[in-house]
Amino acid sequence: MLLTILYIVGITAEAMTGALAAGKRHMDWFGVMLVASATAIGGGTVRDILLGHYPLNWIANPQYLLITCLAGLATTWIAPLVVRFHKIFVILDALGLIVFSILGCRVAMNMGQPVIICLVAAVVTGVFGGLLRDLICRRTPLVLHKELYASVAFIAAGLYMAQLHFGVSENIAIGVTLVTGFLLRLAAIRFSWQLPVFRIDESADKPKEEAKS
Amino acid sequence: MLLTILYIVGITAEAMTGALAAGKRHMDWFGVMLVASATAIGGGTVRDILLGHYPLNWIANPQYLLITCLAGLATTWIAPLVVRFHKIFVILDALGLIVFSILGCRVAMNMGQPVIICLVAAVVTGVFGGLLRDLICRRTPLVLHKELYASVAFIAAGLYMAQLHFGVSENIAIGVTLVTGFLLRLAAIRFSWQLPVFRIDESADKPKEEAKS
Amino acid sequence: MLLTILYIVGITAEAMTGALAAGKRHMDWFGVMLVASATAIGGGTVRDILLGHYPLNWIANPQYLLITCLAGLATTWIAPLVVRFHKIFVILDALGLIVFSILGCRVAMNMGQPVIICLVAAVVTGVFGGLLRDLICRRTPLVLHKELYASVAFIAAGLYMAQLHFGVSENIAIGVTLVTGFLLRLAAIRFSWQLPVFRIDESADKPKEEAKS
Repeated sequence: MLLTILYIVGITAEAMTGALAAGKRHMDWFGVMLVASATAIGGGTVRDILLGHYPLNWIANPQYLLITCLAGLATTWIAPLVVRFHKIFVILDALGLIVFSILGCRVAMNMGQPVIICLVAAVVTGVFGGLLRDLICRRTPLVLHKELYASVAFIAAGLYMAQLHFGVSENIAIGVTLVTGFLLRLAAIRFSWQLPVFRIDESADKPKEEAKS
Repeated sequence: MLLTILYIVGITAEAMTGALAAGKRHMDWFGVMLVASATAIGGGTVRDILLGHYPLNWIANPQYLLITCLAGLATTWIAPLVVRFHKIFVILDALGLIVFSILGCRVAMNMGQPVIICLVAAVVTGVFGGLLRDLICRRTPLVLHKELYASVAFIAAGLYMAQLHFGVSENIAIGVTLVTGFLLRLAAIRFSWQLPVFRIDESADKPKEEAKS
Repeated sequence: MLLTILYIVGITAEAMTGALAAGKRHMDWFGVMLVASATAIGGGTVRDILLGHYPLNWIANPQYLLITCLAGLATTWIAPLVVRFHKIFVILDALGLIVFSILGCRVAMNMGQPVIICLVAAVVTGVFGGLLRDLICRRTPLVLHKELYASVAFIAAGLYMAQLHFGVSENIAIGVTLVTGFLLRLAAIRFSWQLPVFRIDESADKPKEEAKS
């Protein structure tokens, strides 16, 4: 129940960040709705397609698709507010990430998948919406460069499963995961924690180009 | 029957526009066939994957894949003709859009999907082929900027379903939808009807980038 | 058995080329693992999704995903070696291509698909990993420009199926296909064999842009 409410808050916030990205590419209303929806529910869609988990959530519950389309269109009116109060979106996005992670993990667990696949499902749910947004808008995907993001989804899902494994009741496990994951993500932003970055000079490019055509 | 003929005309025309896009990127024959096929049958493929509707149409009927590959290769010979008589392609593309929309709508209806999902299926079928083409060829997707396109697919599917709902016979419903949708699309091109565009200055970019990493 | 070993060699080599591409984009460790895995097992994933062949190979056998993630991370340590001994990767990549092609072909054959779909399955398995890598890293896909690559996968799959059709035992068919396909790919690189390229001047662009919006 709490998860459902937080899920709706999460997809709304994600849809709005998607709409802003569409606006920077001067897209029309259809493009705005498309990018908003891909950002908000694309991660869960990719997860379900990979797992063969049909019907997709937004096809069984089209109201979620309506919410993301409307949130996208609403953003075209209130963009200045969204940009101005972007700190609220940082918070909503962090909350959404943990909620997506828990929900993605549960889908895979309910299918009886092994632990590693449950972790992958959590990360895909949390991260691939933003990836799709950046692919459609032709930006280098932010999640592959910036502060801990996929890692937070990974850790949150691991924490959630570990608690269930050790007999913690579901509600408490969800609560602990939400609070811990949320604080971890905010700390990662605040202190600019990031994974090590792998850099290759383009000058090293030449010999490699022949290697893999 | 008529729909099948129009479908073949539609995928042939779409495959040719895909091949032209591949030619502008100096792709080889394999690339030409890939982009041609993605443009022509990619929309239906994405729709079927989202709906979990297997087998995919072109896997059950590989002749459609052969047609798009051959149409793509043929375009490498007759490109000057295609460019010269591009107005014919505007017309074929408009026809194809409505045919794709009706067929996509019918697939979802046969699965017993709710109305909103049938509309989404119609739009995905009509629009995602061009989206895939532009992603592979690394162009900003045209359908997200230009005259009414997705909207025409949406309206055509709505008109088709409304007629069936009110007891109009299938053949008449198809005919009315084809003519109306086709004229609507041509009118949109002629009079440059478009959806409102959402523009954000890149200067508004900075604060937002932090919000969603 | 031999195929399984070669498959593991193949995905390891592909994961390393994917990691190098990620390094040129200055991605973090998560990005490196994502691109490495997409390059190595993305082709089989796309094939299985198109065929509706569930569960996906790496979900049923998560150890393959672990291998590609670890190979990707390892590349961040030994990148200079990988770049220096790139000729070894040319060879491993050529081997991987034929192995992927045979395995992709077999999946479709086991599903009872017609010959043309088996050929498509082989090409998709061999080629789409590299395509996904180049899409995520925003490069124009190399496989659509360079020496025979998809064509080699196509020919290898055709040769394999032809042998089975004429009663050659499976092991011999695999051996003959591996050797022939491998030499064909190396010859294509050595002598720069390529498919004809389709070029259109951008000046021919203007009239066409109206044709397909």
